[in-house]
Amino acid sequence: MLSSEIEIDIRFSETDAMGVVWHGNYLKFFEDGREAFGKEYGLEYLTIFDKGYFTPIVKSEIEHKAPVYYGQKIRVITQYLPAKSAKVLFSYEVINITTGQICAIGSTMQVFLDKNTRELELLTPDFYRDWKLKHLS
Amino acid sequence: MLSSEIEIDIRFSETDAMGVVWHGNYLKFFEDGREAFGKEYGLEYLTIFDKGYFTPIVKSEIEHKAPVYYGQKIRVITQYLPAKSAKVLFSYEVINITTGQICAIGSTMQVFLDKNTRELELLTPDFYRDWKLKHLS
Amino acid sequence: MLSSEIEIDIRFSETDAMGVVWHGNYLKFFEDGREAFGKEYGLEYLTIFDKGYFTPIVKSEIEHKAPVYYGQKIRVITQYLPAKSAKVLFSYEVINITTGQICAIGSTMQVFLDKNTRELELLTPDFYRDWKLKHLS
Amino acid sequence: MLSSEIEIDIRFSETDAMGVVWHGNYLKFFEDGREAFGKEYGLEYLTIFDKGYFTPIVKSEIEHKAPVYYGQKIRVITQYLPAKSAKVLFSYEVINITTGQICAIGSTMQVFLDKNTRELELLTPDFYRDWKLKHLS
Repeated sequence: MLSSEIEIDIRFSETDAMGVVWHGNYLKFFEDGREAFGKEYGLEYLTIFDKGYFTPIVKSEIEHKAPVYYGQKIRVITQYLPAKSAKVLFSYEVINITTGQICAIGSTMQVFLDKNTRELELLTPDFYRDWKLKHLS
Repeated sequence: MLSSEIEIDIRFSETDAMGVVWHGNYLKFFEDGREAFGKEYGLEYLTIFDKGYFTPIVKSEIEHKAPVYYGQKIRVITQYLPAKSAKVLFSYEVINITTGQICAIGSTMQVFLDKNTRELELLTPDFYRDWKLKHLS
Repeated sequence: MLSSEIEIDIRFSETDAMGVVWHGNYLKFFEDGREAFGKEYGLEYLTIFDKGYFTPIVKSEIEHKAPVYYGQKIRVITQYLPAKSAKVLFSYEVINITTGQICAIGSTMQVFLDKNTRELELLTPDFYRDWKLKHLS
Repeated sequence: MLSSEIEIDIRFSETDAMGVVWHGNYLKFFEDGREAFGKEYGLEYLTIFDKGYFTPIVKSEIEHKAPVYYGQKIRVITQYLPAKSAKVLFSYEVINITTGQICAIGSTMQVFLDKNTRELELLTPDFYRDWKLKHLS
């Protein structure tokens, strides 16, 4: 299983009036996780863009298990989930390093859009098939 | 079915380098929708807080159907989903008013925490049972 | 003096762990104020873009006078400041409607960039000279 | 002169529809810079809080010199500016590491509020006088 890890310090601006990280910010942490994965395995947003595609998020899910407070640190574990269609799937586990607790889990689904026409690409792009052959077999 | 609607102008700061609304910002739109619902039906965040509870989001889902560009306007339709347990469930539909398209759908689940101890409240709080009796029967 | 007003409900996500609006969010409120001004006087971001220019912020200042809490409402008064050079200057006053207090004042400076070359435009663009003639004389 | 440095990867969510970092996000970078300074010199937000104070930003300025694009990396240099009154002043320099350019400079002013009463502290708190004696003499 391909996966990648990144540690993130919580920003004060990411907390809310309950004193904890505002729930929507986990999608930023997932984005950080995807980019860390992309750097490690050659699948960065900009690499994909150079191949001619945007890969917008079409679905996301978050489950919150425990709060994270300002001054705490988290680890995001991003795992690549193989799929047969022209999609990119990741699952995420966010650990509160300070407490050792799992604070959130989640997943995202991305599709390929032609960067010029913004039309949905239904077939797996060649570069992505090559990437899968290299990394998953 | 209880539901509420709110219209939102897209902020420039809510767009990303693809030129569209960044996917994570939909959780802000859902929050706007919940607050509009709360104002209409007497279930605002601050009302709940005065009753002794925080209601953090413990689960959220978003499905993106179409992009929204800067300069466009959206309508968020927030629908209350009845549940037997001590939870608050909403579903959301985001319409791009400019194009008429559904651009996103989603849902959230909230639980009750005692605002002092931050312990999970397993039983439906009295004020919420009263609210349900008043609005759902 | 040309000016425009807009009212904004504070979002929960805009608060921080001090329980007040995070200071950086005032730049979003200023942006809302500029857009309200643009709509009223025909100087929206997208109108300027159609004329061939980006107008990035090159300078901003905020002074915070009083906090704003979640559940409160603000009014942003955006005032156009005439300038001879190829710049767009605004000043802002943010009123906490709930308390009646001035909670922040500020200013921004924008320049014109050619939208294709991203080069700085040193001379006042024709459309902007026309706009000034129409609105300021 | 006391100063501190931190490197930051630009998040995709921090870009806007011009393809560059949205101007308001620099206040987040300044916050990152202050916290890096705080960690290095024992003046973190939470340390100050434990001493009984909030230190809200009452003034901020940013000057933008050059854009920063997604995929680029920045360095924030945070410099402590001594002041006689009960204030905390910092200046910031943001370097685009990828291009070598200075992309922004700025400054912030913070005051001390009693964390319980939220009243402005006009005299320099003891712990801060001690901190200054230790670090500035």
